[in-house]
Amino acid sequence: MTAPAHLAATRTAYDSVAALYAELVGNVESNPPVDRAMLAAFAELAGPAGPVADLGCGPGHLTAHLAALGCAAFGVDLSPAMIELARAAHPRLRFDEGSMTALDLADGSVGGVLSWYSTIHTPPEGLPEVLAELHRVLAPGGHLLIGFFGSDEPSVLPFDHKVTTAYRWPLDRFAALLDDAGFAEAARMSRAPVDGERPLPHGRILARKPV
Amino acid sequence: MTAPAHLAATRTAYDSVAALYAELVGNVESNPPVDRAMLAAFAELAGPAGPVADLGCGPGHLTAHLAALGCAAFGVDLSPAMIELARAAHPRLRFDEGSMTALDLADGSVGGVLSWYSTIHTPPEGLPEVLAELHRVLAPGGHLLIGFFGSDEPSVLPFDHKVTTAYRWPLDRFAALLDDAGFAEAARMSRAPVDGERPLPHGRILARKPV
Repeated sequence: MTAPAHLAATRTAYDSVAALYAELVGNVESNPPVDRAMLAAFAELAGPAGPVADLGCGPGHLTAHLAALGCAAFGVDLSPAMIELARAAHPRLRFDEGSMTALDLADGSVGGVLSWYSTIHTPPEGLPEVLAELHRVLAPGGHLLIGFFGSDEPSVLPFDHKVTTAYRWPLDRFAALLDDAGFAEAARMSRAPVDGERPLPHGRILARKPV
Repeated sequence: MTAPAHLAATRTAYDSVAALYAELVGNVESNPPVDRAMLAAFAELAGPAGPVADLGCGPGHLTAHLAALGCAAFGVDLSPAMIELARAAHPRLRFDEGSMTALDLADGSVGGVLSWYSTIHTPPEGLPEVLAELHRVLAPGGHLLIGFFGSDEPSVLPFDHKVTTAYRWPLDRFAALLDDAGFAEAARMSRAPVDGERPLPHGRILARKPV
């Protein structure tokens, strides 16, 4: 699939399940304590450095969570239906349609980027371009927190995600791409699935754009 | 060194630097945000399950932090001088002298165990005995959070810690010992050193005693 075709497919897939998706995952408290802890650490580090972009924000629940933690948070999503839900649920916050491959944000204009499972549908060969874009919009010293499906296998593998094909990444492989993109790793975490989740580990990497 | 000789050496070493040590590290805010986040996640998981033991509590600053987060926290340390400082700083909390090799706690009597850098001086061959003791005192379903010096090398290596010889552990190796001891891993983290720290990664493992 070409990159534009992949984006169109992802947009359509999320548009078609937006309301159900928002009901199922649009709740901060449903995230396990260690995930909320990582979000809190990210908010503490990124918030003072400038606006915080929740990229692939879906229904905006994490955008609102970051705002509640003191960040000047705003959301961007590929899916117009998701943006509509986010605006309705959080009318005081800013939500824009947009793609992580070409963000309508100036160079160095944000203090933090949250990408919570928003690169999971990106074909592996397209990920460096996305990470370069995240690096571009981050201010020097700004932080990136990225969450994704992990893997105990050595290679990147596709799997049948409920919405559209997704990829699970060995933590080392994802970390190497961030390093290649110019980020300095601050912390990496692998957490085990909790009850009700598919039997895959979850990867989180907190990284910084060097000053 | 025999185990009792090692314990005596560690006790003496910490007794001799207790006041300075308390001044240097006895401050929760000096821990980076991701470390405080892990402590918060641990408190949320362990607190509701019963009393929480801060083993190797030093001057008691993390015991007090866990108490502030809602846990029924108490501290245990090998060093009488540390216990004296902890009691003076936190007169409402309980602090006891004791060794992680033979805790004066009943089987399954605590909902959580925090071991924050308190196994770092344990010779590697003695660690399984300590982990078995932590497993013994934890209630089924209880959580353990363990913090230690990490390593990018494949083997466990001693290094010259300021107080007395310490060991740095590859995350995988430490995780394997926890698995051997009967714990179920919930999450593992490696974080990079921050300014002012020695150039070693830091390992954290959150694990659960199965029900």
